[in-house]
Amino acid sequence: MKKTIDLNCDMGESFGNYKLGNDDEVIKYISSVNVACGFHGGDPNTMDHTVKIAKEYGVGVGAHPGFPDLAGFGRRNMDIPREELINLIIYQIGALDIFCQKYNVKMQHVKPHGSMNNMADSNEQMAINIVDAIQSVKPDLPIFVKPNSELHRISEKKGHPYKLEIFADRAYHKDFSLVSRKEEGAIISDPNFVADRIVRMVTKGKVNAISGEEIEVNGETICVHGDTPTALEMIKVIKKRLEGAGIEVKSPFV
Amino acid sequence: MKKTIDLNCDMGESFGNYKLGNDDEVIKYISSVNVACGFHGGDPNTMDHTVKIAKEYGVGVGAHPGFPDLAGFGRRNMDIPREELINLIIYQIGALDIFCQKYNVKMQHVKPHGSMNNMADSNEQMAINIVDAIQSVKPDLPIFVKPNSELHRISEKKGHPYKLEIFADRAYHKDFSLVSRKEEGAIISDPNFVADRIVRMVTKGKVNAISGEEIEVNGETICVHGDTPTALEMIKVIKKRLEGAGIEVKSPFV
Amino acid sequence: MKKTIDLNCDMGESFGNYKLGNDDEVIKYISSVNVACGFHGGDPNTMDHTVKIAKEYGVGVGAHPGFPDLAGFGRRNMDIPREELINLIIYQIGALDIFCQKYNVKMQHVKPHGSMNNMADSNEQMAINIVDAIQSVKPDLPIFVKPNSELHRISEKKGHPYKLEIFADRAYHKDFSLVSRKEEGAIISDPNFVADRIVRMVTKGKVNAISGEEIEVNGETICVHGDTPTALEMIKVIKKRLEGAGIEVKSPFV
Amino acid sequence: MKKTIDLNCDMGESFGNYKLGNDDEVIKYISSVNVACGFHGGDPNTMDHTVKIAKEYGVGVGAHPGFPDLAGFGRRNMDIPREELINLIIYQIGALDIFCQKYNVKMQHVKPHGSMNNMADSNEQMAINIVDAIQSVKPDLPIFVKPNSELHRISEKKGHPYKLEIFADRAYHKDFSLVSRKEEGAIISDPNFVADRIVRMVTKGKVNAISGEEIEVNGETICVHGDTPTALEMIKVIKKRLEGAGIEVKSPFV
Repeated sequence: MKKTIDLNCDMGESFGNYKLGNDDEVIKYISSVNVACGFHGGDPNTMDHTVKIAKEYGVGVGAHPGFPDLAGFGRRNMDIPREELINLIIYQIGALDIFCQKYNVKMQHVKPHGSMNNMADSNEQMAINIVDAIQSVKPDLPIFVKPNSELHRISEKKGHPYKLEIFADRAYHKDFSLVSRKEEGAIISDPNFVADRIVRMVTKGKVNAISGEEIEVNGETICVHGDTPTALEMIKVIKKRLEGAGIEVKSPFV
Repeated sequence: MKKTIDLNCDMGESFGNYKLGNDDEVIKYISSVNVACGFHGGDPNTMDHTVKIAKEYGVGVGAHPGFPDLAGFGRRNMDIPREELINLIIYQIGALDIFCQKYNVKMQHVKPHGSMNNMADSNEQMAINIVDAIQSVKPDLPIFVKPNSELHRISEKKGHPYKLEIFADRAYHKDFSLVSRKEEGAIISDPNFVADRIVRMVTKGKVNAISGEEIEVNGETICVHGDTPTALEMIKVIKKRLEGAGIEVKSPFV
Repeated sequence: MKKTIDLNCDMGESFGNYKLGNDDEVIKYISSVNVACGFHGGDPNTMDHTVKIAKEYGVGVGAHPGFPDLAGFGRRNMDIPREELINLIIYQIGALDIFCQKYNVKMQHVKPHGSMNNMADSNEQMAINIVDAIQSVKPDLPIFVKPNSELHRISEKKGHPYKLEIFADRAYHKDFSLVSRKEEGAIISDPNFVADRIVRMVTKGKVNAISGEEIEVNGETICVHGDTPTALEMIKVIKKRLEGAGIEVKSPFV
Repeated sequence: MKKTIDLNCDMGESFGNYKLGNDDEVIKYISSVNVACGFHGGDPNTMDHTVKIAKEYGVGVGAHPGFPDLAGFGRRNMDIPREELINLIIYQIGALDIFCQKYNVKMQHVKPHGSMNNMADSNEQMAINIVDAIQSVKPDLPIFVKPNSELHRISEKKGHPYKLEIFADRAYHKDFSLVSRKEEGAIISDPNFVADRIVRMVTKGKVNAISGEEIEVNGETICVHGDTPTALEMIKVIKKRLEGAGIEVKSPFV
């Protein structure tokens, strides 16, 4: 039986006159897209376009809700009260969902953006708020979670559907936490090395931690970045290698 | 047979720490609510609360999309390109719709807010954009239109469902255009006079233009304002008079 | 010699259509005003009006820079990088300063708003950033600091001019940290009690901590709140009592 | 005597994570810069950086105030009331001015951005509001105006200092109004042709209108665009040709 893996990518992050990323190219090489919903990035025109091209290429559409912080691109911690956090996640899911309806696409997943996602690695309350928000409106909508994160644990505990997400170009510690970007070796930039790493993850279920130890990995979707020319090149190499290894790039929900 | 009339009111216009209006009181006396969707006013918490109380009091919920201009409260003209206008209306409808889903409420109508509505009185392209936006995602969702406006004409022409909206406290010209707020007599502030005027509209289908001439009126929903203590008083008087005249305050869709 | 004390109040927090506070009344009873600069609240029209009435009543004008978070009113923690924090403080000071220039008023002080101020109680880096921002453009502009806060310590250390600020209606711990709003007794709401407390602070230099112990206090400016009808009442009582005790309400810089 | 001409360019338009333009390169070839002030584009970090590099290269710094419309980049008409328009221009000038103070640079000029500028071509009230705003805080600060625009006429009438601005890459009608971008031939894209045109403007005071007729031109500053790789190339060619013709690129205020 042919193996498959999902490649997901953040997209739709442009805002008005400001363009970000290479969406029209990157969309050709991936299987799931996380669409910014207008809070940390994105705007209605961009959301419409992103869902349209996702449908055109048969790519699964997910909501990518973020903090209401365009100036910080949703990448800085904010102490948002539980009720407000829940409502702003619901709002963003709804805003994207209607564009899915317009193109007759079923929303496939949710992936929290930036600091909201990072805070949910270790902040239990943040993880609870995120899962509760989704459950209140889309109880069957899967969430992408990092292995061993609080968001993983809470999704499991509440019986909420999820998929484990691995970062293609980031080093891991033994406990599957990401090596901080501030530390050496955190970012892996050689496309072939990244591609080989993914092939091994998918076919053998193994990856080496930054300490060198082999750890087991069970990623169901792999996050790639597409916002630089180099990133696009990496995605192409990854896709080619995966196909060469008989692994199909495919959404886990298709 | 008992006559009925719809009273609609703009609500959910608070933003963060800024409170506007008397929603928790006003909701008791009306039958339809136009909910701000976060662009000219409103925020996710407020939208959640507004839909919740609307459901509690059996009040119909409508989307109230506006221009992306919080500083101007959506009350100043903006030249927004057609595609962007359509997408920002869709976005706002979707953002509200998911709160309707959360509370198991069916969205009842759309009413454009402020300058977007006023521009659609005479600007054909604006009217076309608004109707096209709604048709692309909710083709059966009725729109509130002013009699003889471009929005009325275009809804008719495109076969889009609509309800004719009358303003309780505003004077009319013979051709059913509103007397500008800048002219004397534009605003009617005596609650009893307003109430009598509405009773006559509903039971006789007549109203006097500012020139004194009697004109025929066929309003299906009456807009009342609720954002001042006086306004709340007026709504109470109107409701009481209507009931005294055997007219039930009731959404046209119930 | 007649004793004097400064009463300072946050003002100019309205935004567009959203009105907050009772500025035109409160301004009559205070001696210094902290003017919102358009990030957490306030807008250009409001800033213009606030400086105008401050000049009219001879009230000292201070900048009240906050986090760029209108939805949260600058009251939630944000992790803003040092360079950006410095530049957004500079920006806000400049935006207010030009209205001071327009009215031929000299800017009197800076007081950080909300979470920016609260984070500077214990976060050394935040305190350094704030002081560095002010020093880079207005090295002689005094800052209002809470006694024993990091902002106090850093101002002292860097030789930056400051005034010690006391909160009239808040309970203190022995170490002069504020009792959290979440704890019982944190807020003192009886105007006469607050007024007596201030008179004793000013004339005797003493106040009782929440534990009952008498502690020494050396406040140079007292923060009062003016955004509710009760608050206005409290300010009037405070001012009257102070005057009755022979204490003049007066800016420390006049 | 050596002739001189000013080349001005819009800059500092990046916002947070969103980068726009090639400022660090373009700054080397021009003599005046129009700095976005955070409303239609720009942010405090970007303003700081732009003033810093302008000082480094001896380039004159001007404020480039725009409408409060980041989503539309200040390029769509807005009906902003006179008082608010004046105050938001003052605010933006003040915000930039403090960064000028930080780098010990004297603000050189103001140039309204986008729709604000375009509306002032023919809208007398807009022109009056802009000039009144500047006069209320910086009565000696020159404004860049298009020849024969209302902004030109009102500056003249009120005795406000101004410099006539020519667009290097745009075709003109006989009456010196710009040919609309929607018409053929409106944009001139051949760098050599543009450069020759400017040399002739500066040395002979002549330019050909789109109709072919020779018209007299008295431009004191020439607007160039720098936000694309092609634009940068054009600026380099223009500068080289001007120097080859013995014309120095130099601010009119140096």
